[in-house]
Amino acid sequence: MADINSPVEIGVTTGPIRGSRKVYVGARTGSGIRVAMREIDLEGGEPSVRVYDTSGPYTDPEAHIDIHAGLAPLRRDWIMARGDVEDYAGREVKPEDNGQLGPDRSGGVPQFPNAVKRPLRAKAGMNVSQMHYARRGIITPEMEYVAERENLGREIAADLIRDGESWGAEIPDVITPEFVRSEVARGRAIIPSNINHPESEPMAIGRNFLVKINANIGNSAVASDVAQEVDKMVWATRWGADTIMDLSTGRNIHDTREWIIRNSPVPIGTVPIYQALEKVGGIAEELTWEIFRDTLIEQAEQGVDYFTIHAGVRLPYIPMTAKRVTGIVSRGGSIMAKWCLAHHKESFLYEHFDEITEIMKAYDIAYSLGDGLRPGSIRDANDEAQFAELYTLGELTKRAWEQDVQVMIEGPGHVPMHKIKQNMEKQLEACGEAPFYTLGPLVTDIAPGYDHITSGIGAAQIGWYGTAMLCYVTPKEHLGLPDRDDVKVGVVTYKLAAHAADLAKGHPAAQVRDDALSKARFEFRWRDQFNLSLDPETAEQYHDQTLPAEGAKSAHFCSMCGPKFCSMKITQEVRDFAAKQNAATETFIAASEEEAEKGMAEMSAKFREVGNQLYVGAGDREHD
Amino acid sequence: MADINSPVEIGVTTGPIRGSRKVYVGARTGSGIRVAMREIDLEGGEPSVRVYDTSGPYTDPEAHIDIHAGLAPLRRDWIMARGDVEDYAGREVKPEDNGQLGPDRSGGVPQFPNAVKRPLRAKAGMNVSQMHYARRGIITPEMEYVAERENLGREIAADLIRDGESWGAEIPDVITPEFVRSEVARGRAIIPSNINHPESEPMAIGRNFLVKINANIGNSAVASDVAQEVDKMVWATRWGADTIMDLSTGRNIHDTREWIIRNSPVPIGTVPIYQALEKVGGIAEELTWEIFRDTLIEQAEQGVDYFTIHAGVRLPYIPMTAKRVTGIVSRGGSIMAKWCLAHHKESFLYEHFDEITEIMKAYDIAYSLGDGLRPGSIRDANDEAQFAELYTLGELTKRAWEQDVQVMIEGPGHVPMHKIKQNMEKQLEACGEAPFYTLGPLVTDIAPGYDHITSGIGAAQIGWYGTAMLCYVTPKEHLGLPDRDDVKVGVVTYKLAAHAADLAKGHPAAQVRDDALSKARFEFRWRDQFNLSLDPETAEQYHDQTLPAEGAKSAHFCSMCGPKFCSMKITQEVRDFAAKQNAATETFIAASEEEAEKGMAEMSAKFREVGNQLYVGAGDREHD
Repeated sequence: MADINSPVEIGVTTGPIRGSRKVYVGARTGSGIRVAMREIDLEGGEPSVRVYDTSGPYTDPEAHIDIHAGLAPLRRDWIMARGDVEDYAGREVKPEDNGQLGPDRSGGVPQFPNAVKRPLRAKAGMNVSQMHYARRGIITPEMEYVAERENLGREIAADLIRDGESWGAEIPDVITPEFVRSEVARGRAIIPSNINHPESEPMAIGRNFLVKINANIGNSAVASDVAQEVDKMVWATRWGADTIMDLSTGRNIHDTREWIIRNSPVPIGTVPIYQALEKVGGIAEELTWEIFRDTLIEQAEQGVDYFTIHAGVRLPYIPMTAKRVTGIVSRGGSIMAKWCLAHHKESFLYEHFDEITEIMKAYDIAYSLGDGLRPGSIRDANDEAQFAELYTLGELTKRAWEQDVQVMIEGPGHVPMHKIKQNMEKQLEACGEAPFYTLGPLVTDIAPGYDHITSGIGAAQIGWYGTAMLCYVTPKEHLGLPDRDDVKVGVVTYKLAAHAADLAKGHPAAQVRDDALSKARFEFRWRDQFNLSLDPETAEQYHDQTLPAEGAKSAHFCSMCGPKFCSMKITQEVRDFAAKQNAATETFIAASEEEAEKGMAEMSAKFREVGNQLYVGAGDREHD
Repeated sequence: MADINSPVEIGVTTGPIRGSRKVYVGARTGSGIRVAMREIDLEGGEPSVRVYDTSGPYTDPEAHIDIHAGLAPLRRDWIMARGDVEDYAGREVKPEDNGQLGPDRSGGVPQFPNAVKRPLRAKAGMNVSQMHYARRGIITPEMEYVAERENLGREIAADLIRDGESWGAEIPDVITPEFVRSEVARGRAIIPSNINHPESEPMAIGRNFLVKINANIGNSAVASDVAQEVDKMVWATRWGADTIMDLSTGRNIHDTREWIIRNSPVPIGTVPIYQALEKVGGIAEELTWEIFRDTLIEQAEQGVDYFTIHAGVRLPYIPMTAKRVTGIVSRGGSIMAKWCLAHHKESFLYEHFDEITEIMKAYDIAYSLGDGLRPGSIRDANDEAQFAELYTLGELTKRAWEQDVQVMIEGPGHVPMHKIKQNMEKQLEACGEAPFYTLGPLVTDIAPGYDHITSGIGAAQIGWYGTAMLCYVTPKEHLGLPDRDDVKVGVVTYKLAAHAADLAKGHPAAQVRDDALSKARFEFRWRDQFNLSLDPETAEQYHDQTLPAEGAKSAHFCSMCGPKFCSMKITQEVRDFAAKQNAATETFIAASEEEAEKGMAEMSAKFREVGNQLYVGAGDREHD
């Protein structure tokens, strides 16, 4: 292609999220491993709050970002040090990898300048999966990194009484590298980490760790979109996406994926059948095991961390979908169903599953066993087809585990609230506690345009019940392609759902951030309230639409009560009152009475300054 | 005031919601009562779908709307026919009713032209509450109206197997007027219906009826805002608000409220303590029973349908809030706490509760017993103060019931998911199954700017557990005053949460709309999909951002699968396959094979027309 090396302008958002600093915390094992986190400094002598950080080097002002060079290979040395991999001459990129069957109508996508030419794979007879190491009792740097990363806030939380309903999850007070190892060894958690994606920062997906979220991106086949998709990837991880799925279809899939992986600080997942289908011109019947296998190798060498494989869509299950309102809604599922029907044969994914597993273990790619028969409507939820497939996924999980390959299980879909728990229970039973990874579920079908919310409701619940990772849904679900703003809304909605699940499970440190934000709210530290929120920019912007920007940010009242009966002052009076009946607290009261006076003086001053609109408008936002 | 009669421009949104018609259904009792509903006509010979309609005459093209005249008094004749009311010279409007203490700085709000001068009240010794009639075995037209309104879709649903977990709710297959009467008689449902608000269309709030939602509005004290608040009220009911709370504070409260009530087709609630506080210049200590009582009469005569009364904030409970992270966050609660502390006396609301009830029964105003000590943060959820108040609300419920006055109970607030159910269980136990009315609850504190979602998650759950009405939260919660767009987002979010709750409870007709929309989605009837959604305008707008407007609306594929492996076609093939093993279905198959051919022909034509962007973009919106 003529323009294969034409320069491409790729801009991404960099710099710290407002109000926070990038910090690197040394693993307490003293191994020298440094774990990236985000620290939010607060006013008024409040201790700063550390939060989980998925944004990679892009939020580090010290980091040099060059999209054309890709990120530094954080894990490279760890991988090499294990001495069980070799590099080799990678598979040649063919025109059909980029969908160039006929004349190129796409305009083309430039090749990534530093595309890996000599990928790594396990030496003959070796298995490089984190599960394999874990089962042999080896604690890898990846496991150490995960332990430190997950321990966030555990020290502060140590003094707190743990509180929650974990539905059988076993979340320890402190996460040790050994705990991570044991969870990976028994298949209850995975650390997606293809040895050809050393740029990614290790993270765990499992019921006894923080609930994670995935964001989907995917190009359409014009050059400019490579820039757009790389930007979306960086943007999604900035707001909290723990993994990214590249669901690109059409042309230039191969090159687009290379740009994304080389610049991604989080694991990347794909659905290889999409690209395989492109290679046969979109005719499902013409798919073969050989073409699919070749596509797996192609993507394995690029560094894809997990593959969605719809091996559970078996020939006998397909008729079970005939009576459904919405039939088969999974693209991967429908491709396989079509293939099975066309050939009247069992799925080649099911037939060749152990061979697929052989490939997975040579690169440490994790399975994301796809739910090709998931329900696409409330009416179809929890039906025979769905659960028949689920139990087959359980059977495949055990087969993958026999070769020490990491597995997670994909789940629905559209499910009314009262049927959500059954999904979690059956999954745990059928799949031996392998991590569950669900899309929503949406709890009603009637709100297109708001399906980030209908699905956020289901996601928070199934996350509470034990789902390890939640696949986001954007406001455009069922309607169109999400833009940058939709991606952010989807990510923030799923972050709050995942956090709500952590709180309800009784995660020892989850509530630290809620408490800090609520204390800031109650003490009218507006900037702290913004900075502690999941989306500081939106919080401040909404606030400033009503209140004079600077005066109000230190005002000792808000639209909740107004200065005439500020709840802070009342609680102060309450404390005095309580104290009169309790000499023991005298001293604390004496101290805080002063503050109260000061606060009130400031308050009325500010009030004169901003006028009484605050107070008279108050009603709008509280139900009393 | 000079400008008291100056004209005011008030514009509201009128006309049908796109894709639907206003219909009036005669009660099957043959009483001649006509119940307003909305009918959505579908394409392809599909039966039209009837939905619950809160929008009043504003969506009826036949109706003459004149904001300066107010709505027609639908219930007037029913009220008069009972022969137990009398009109009388109403209380004179005083300057302080509009907050005109000193010189008027507000610019003033014009009086409503047809302000009621001779309000109605019960004749001496009479009780005009719906509960009183119900307990005497009388089925009122209001009860009949409610029965017809709630029965929506029950006929279609009759053939469906009921499915759900109702947590002890007793939802019948068909709602009869007698059922409504019995629910009101036992206090398990209320029909807020002040005899001085005959414009409102009867609706029920109760655990065995559809889950309802409330939207808060409230003015700030400048003339233009009267127009804004009336518009917000009409706008909120257009999108589904079942009741409106006018939380206006500051000046011109009285006149603003008159404009809102006279034009409102739904019950109006208020928090009278706000206005009482205005009358004493915002100094809580100076509140007296006499001033409060006078305010109740004032609002009763205007037609307020339910009052939030914080009579459960008792002196001994106040110290229990001293150790909280966020103390007292309810405005009404903090006013009363301040009063109690200042006087070191028991709340005058508690002391005079039976006198308040005397007033309520003379106008049929329902209690909304306020949760003044609700938690304002995750940390404070389900604490001693909250539940101490709840049990007092239970005691007051029984006292109100002794006089046959209708009661609902307000609930939190901020509650993590695992503590939500306990709120419902304790409320049912403490308050004898009186309807629960909750604000959210928010399931985390860390997402200001997205609290319609954090609260929508909690609202869907507590609605499922049995809460009868959900008070909406807008994206501006904690940050500022909601504008028109925020009001719509809040209402739609709560409609979907309430609907998700109805589905999970197993409401017999709830799923009819989900099934119709999903069938439309699967059959690519795009317009039907939009029209059946809670917000057709947003759904279509999002769709059109990606797809060519007209061509795509009849395209037999979507961004879910793309035409190359449209799930409709596959399901068709699946049906053929299934049929081969089942002669019984032969005929049905023969018929639908034709359609399939036709569909596919159309499909590929459309595909050529819109190009392959659909297909290649598909990945963006599905996780496989």
